[in-house]
Amino acid sequence: MALIVQKFGGSCLYNDESVKNAARIIVEEKKKGNDVIAVVSAQGNTTDILLEKALRMGKNPSKRELDVIMSAGEQLSASLLSIAVEDLGYECVSLLGWQAGIKTNSSYGFARVKDIDTSRIKKELSRKKIVVIAGFQGLNEKNDMTTLGRGGSDTTAVSLAAAMKAEKCQIFSKIDGIYTADPEKVEEAKKLKEIQYEAMQELAFLGVKVLNPRAVELAHKYDVVIEVKSAFIEGDGTFVKESVQMEKMLISGVTKQTNLVQMTVSSVENKPGTAFNIFGILAKENINVDIIMQTEDVNNTVKIVFLVGEEEVEKATQLLENRGIDSEKIEVNSNIAKVSVVGLGIESHPGVAAAIFEALSEKNINISLISSSELRFSVVVNKDVADDAVKAIHKRFINI
Amino acid sequence: MALIVQKFGGSCLYNDESVKNAARIIVEEKKKGNDVIAVVSAQGNTTDILLEKALRMGKNPSKRELDVIMSAGEQLSASLLSIAVEDLGYECVSLLGWQAGIKTNSSYGFARVKDIDTSRIKKELSRKKIVVIAGFQGLNEKNDMTTLGRGGSDTTAVSLAAAMKAEKCQIFSKIDGIYTADPEKVEEAKKLKEIQYEAMQELAFLGVKVLNPRAVELAHKYDVVIEVKSAFIEGDGTFVKESVQMEKMLISGVTKQTNLVQMTVSSVENKPGTAFNIFGILAKENINVDIIMQTEDVNNTVKIVFLVGEEEVEKATQLLENRGIDSEKIEVNSNIAKVSVVGLGIESHPGVAAAIFEALSEKNINISLISSSELRFSVVVNKDVADDAVKAIHKRFINI
Repeated sequence: MALIVQKFGGSCLYNDESVKNAARIIVEEKKKGNDVIAVVSAQGNTTDILLEKALRMGKNPSKRELDVIMSAGEQLSASLLSIAVEDLGYECVSLLGWQAGIKTNSSYGFARVKDIDTSRIKKELSRKKIVVIAGFQGLNEKNDMTTLGRGGSDTTAVSLAAAMKAEKCQIFSKIDGIYTADPEKVEEAKKLKEIQYEAMQELAFLGVKVLNPRAVELAHKYDVVIEVKSAFIEGDGTFVKESVQMEKMLISGVTKQTNLVQMTVSSVENKPGTAFNIFGILAKENINVDIIMQTEDVNNTVKIVFLVGEEEVEKATQLLENRGIDSEKIEVNSNIAKVSVVGLGIESHPGVAAAIFEALSEKNINISLISSSELRFSVVVNKDVADDAVKAIHKRFINI
Repeated sequence: MALIVQKFGGSCLYNDESVKNAARIIVEEKKKGNDVIAVVSAQGNTTDILLEKALRMGKNPSKRELDVIMSAGEQLSASLLSIAVEDLGYECVSLLGWQAGIKTNSSYGFARVKDIDTSRIKKELSRKKIVVIAGFQGLNEKNDMTTLGRGGSDTTAVSLAAAMKAEKCQIFSKIDGIYTADPEKVEEAKKLKEIQYEAMQELAFLGVKVLNPRAVELAHKYDVVIEVKSAFIEGDGTFVKESVQMEKMLISGVTKQTNLVQMTVSSVENKPGTAFNIFGILAKENINVDIIMQTEDVNNTVKIVFLVGEEEVEKATQLLENRGIDSEKIEVNSNIAKVSVVGLGIESHPGVAAAIFEALSEKNINISLISSSELRFSVVVNKDVADDAVKAIHKRFINI
């Protein structure tokens, strides 16, 4: 008899029938003789609806109160799912974050799990009950509710799997696994049987929304095996784990991000501290900067190019202007996309870069920026050819 | 500086504007230099919507899970109201039942408050914060959430006012006070300035929905002054308290109930234990019986007449048939209404009964059943003349 943690995302719980479907999945696992802890997100877009409600009451609500209202979403889905499980004839108990012993720090809205007191959960499991836990929420040392930020239910599920030493943590959504590229865009995209933690984390950072990157990091740290699978399609999903079977494929996936904007600051005085000054301002205001390039410009000045999220452009421009950078020197290009190839040890394979350049040049696709890490090789291209770039690269690496 | 408890019912919180209105009422009180504890119900018909959602998941949900889902309604309204108060520039904190120290027994769905640990509330008040508390909910010794039953937020508010020794407990709704009769039906109905606890409790039992009868009982026990007032109309409401100014009026109100059905069981064997048998069956199944009359019937049998709630008729009939009472002997009459006069010490005024009979006979209204208590005198009349009966009696007593 094993313990299985099953996490159901909002897309698995968006209406009555899908909640009942999740209840059936849980009961199937229980029938195998396993103990089951189910972790739930809020139904469908409930979290957005609650946030809107809150913002209609006050333009700048305190984060503490936002967490009170936001955590109601998971409370509803946890109790509804428990009732649906009971209706199938199995004993079930729902626990909210504070009842499940999930202790966090006090960073309302993006709290971190500090510790889990598993005594209540263990008590309920020992009574042969299925335990349904409201994800995304915890309790801080002030006895106040906190939420873990978007995708926080993944973190709840992985933390519980770690604390309870579960055999695996299944993450249910509409998507039946991790693909080598977006299957809606790239016909040849293949579902991975397995993927290493690091590669999965990188893909999650690059916008593959099936899993929260923090949850993957946590799973890696505590060696929790994750299975990403569909709540609506039978069959195995993708396993995320430490060591995967050696395959010919070096590459786990090819992905694109289109929500980035390229900013160029020209004619910057070429002296030490210039780049630091620019990025210091942005960092102070929590603006994430991606891929930085500095090149020579006219008259012994330099040009600094970098990417920011599209929702940050206005603020970033304002900050730079406030620091005396002439607005004429700031150029914004939103017609770009970042295409990335992810794979373990990619940097130590010198052939990867060459293959990417070759694949893109064959399609006459120009590259404006490049960056790489141990796990990832990214190029910036025009937005309108981003899908072609993904396909070309995918074909070059995956279609073996 | 005083402490005021303000309770806002669902009808005061049914949309964005009404929540903001409640926030303004709270802030007005705070501006007077008083401490404020606000207790909230769920918005509008949220509780019904949540109950429906639950019943769609399972025909017979456990009461524990129902309480988890139901208590989310007050969680939402508490946080929304707190945000609205913050938006007016005042520090505010929402507390759920378990955070506010409201300890109950384990009767899910109709729990009783056992004790209140006021330490958290006192701490927040000492920091000059307005405290908004989710009504209707508490925590049992298993660390599970409970709800107090319909109208439970009144009980929360009065319990808190008692525990915190508040100056008064204001109950806000759409209604601006307690009237001598339904002002929509009886033109001459007068708003009472004051009413004694006992009379108020009786009116509440008789269907005057402004206040929950259990809450009135509790207020009486702990000598909490209640003010019933409107959240939308300025001015004093009705005070519910121990001793009221002597007025010429003996009668507090005239009221009717139309949700009752008269059941008649004929030809019942006339021997000891017969009535006990019938009412024993009904009591065992928690069917409340109102006004019982037993008269002689043909052949040395008796006829037993009583009232039950209209939603219980079917079950009551079934139970009697199961106990061998011939269905032909059971007669059901739903064309009835119970009209009641409420006033302290009504039974010791022999003139009351005579005046009621006189008022009704002048209007040719027949009486089928009569009952009286120290506080109340009730008659059963045909449903179609119930409003006329209320008017006639009201005119006789109130219109001085």
